[in-house]
Amino acid sequence: MSQVAGTDRTKAAPPDPLAPAVILVAPQLAMNIGTTARAMANCGFYDLRIVNPKPKWPNELSRRASSGAQGILDEARICASTSEAIADLTRVYATTGRSRRMTKRIVTPRQAALEVRTAHGQGEKTGFLFGPERTGLENDDLALADALISVPLNPAFASLNLAQSVLLVGYEWFQAGDRTPASRLASGDSPPATKEQLEIFFQHLERELDHCGFLRVADKRPTMVRNLRNIFQRASLTDQEVRSLHGVVAELVRGPRGGVRS
Amino acid sequence: MSQVAGTDRTKAAPPDPLAPAVILVAPQLAMNIGTTARAMANCGFYDLRIVNPKPKWPNELSRRASSGAQGILDEARICASTSEAIADLTRVYATTGRSRRMTKRIVTPRQAALEVRTAHGQGEKTGFLFGPERTGLENDDLALADALISVPLNPAFASLNLAQSVLLVGYEWFQAGDRTPASRLASGDSPPATKEQLEIFFQHLERELDHCGFLRVADKRPTMVRNLRNIFQRASLTDQEVRSLHGVVAELVRGPRGGVRS
Repeated sequence: MSQVAGTDRTKAAPPDPLAPAVILVAPQLAMNIGTTARAMANCGFYDLRIVNPKPKWPNELSRRASSGAQGILDEARICASTSEAIADLTRVYATTGRSRRMTKRIVTPRQAALEVRTAHGQGEKTGFLFGPERTGLENDDLALADALISVPLNPAFASLNLAQSVLLVGYEWFQAGDRTPASRLASGDSPPATKEQLEIFFQHLERELDHCGFLRVADKRPTMVRNLRNIFQRASLTDQEVRSLHGVVAELVRGPRGGVRS
Repeated sequence: MSQVAGTDRTKAAPPDPLAPAVILVAPQLAMNIGTTARAMANCGFYDLRIVNPKPKWPNELSRRASSGAQGILDEARICASTSEAIADLTRVYATTGRSRRMTKRIVTPRQAALEVRTAHGQGEKTGFLFGPERTGLENDDLALADALISVPLNPAFASLNLAQSVLLVGYEWFQAGDRTPASRLASGDSPPATKEQLEIFFQHLERELDHCGFLRVADKRPTMVRNLRNIFQRASLTDQEVRSLHGVVAELVRGPRGGVRS
């Protein structure tokens, strides 16, 4: 099910051994471990560590829920304690929902991503801690983390499932390293029109509008012409589209094929 | 299941009638409609419109999958066509995975959120279009949109399910209007220490370190003192923590209770 991004396995980058680890502490549901692996794969995470999973391991339901990310499950490390799971990391962020009586920095996922990208650029291996589905991380686990992550969401309805939390944290990690332009024009095979092509079309259109009388009121003509030009400027036309518009004007002028121009 | 954000229904803001609409075109699975409603509630969306749903409607499975967001399902509008579903909107973004032969602006979810927030600030009602799970939106639906949204994700594993797509788009909408500081120190009940409190602690520590001989090498003393001060500066201590550290130093100096200071 691909909604908003295409999958192209030919574009696979080799797994980055320094990409942050995801550590699930005492996850309760096999399905959530699988959907977590899927969310990790979406975001370029590969390194899954699971502390005391409740489901038996390896787990077939996790595998099926991973929608093809079973490689991450196969490589997942099972650990006996959170300390063991984070031993090789230099910086750890713990996700938490409830505010705790704890003196600790709380960051947004976006801020965490920036900090983790900075550490990554310095050759550091970092990780994100996620707690059990129902209860979240215990205070002793939070005390092992450098900072807490809290996701700004509708305070009246903020509950996320485990894989969605992983997805949002990973999404921010991916965005912080991604160079996709915020906005671009996909133009198929046709390049953008040059301003000269546009000018030639404008003159064609205005010549015909003069001819048919649409621009007959002399003192309104300059404004009307500018307004029309602005409409077509805004459309960021391609070369091919300008050719189509020439055709539109010409055929409108000519009237029905086989008919007579008035 | 609350992982990274607490739910507090007392913080419910009244639904914003201008919050963007979510339009599901021909969704195939009842569960996805429910989890979409949940993701909408997470992000402050309320207005769901469904074009030709495949599951019968209303749907009990959708209801259960919404994890409490059934109000959105109860209010959802069932429409016969995409045109009907978007008739009252001024600006529509269509999510798409595959690149299409179409001359169209493609934006990231973050860019879309900024544009939609701008329109929202001008009193415009906007919407996000999502296609059927397996096939995505058809080209005729894409042609009704102002721009396409494509989520930058791992190109080797980019498939998202419907509700995750809605979550990412809605997450960006929420972030674009949210004023949560990127980083803050949660300090429980204790305020941050003043620099004077810190200075008094430093002097206490250094006095005892002079006394026990840790700082005995005169030409290294200034550097060692600065290094220690930097450690505690970095910790952003609270008032209460400075008091605890005074206790730590004093008790270390005194040795075991009942024992004798050497």
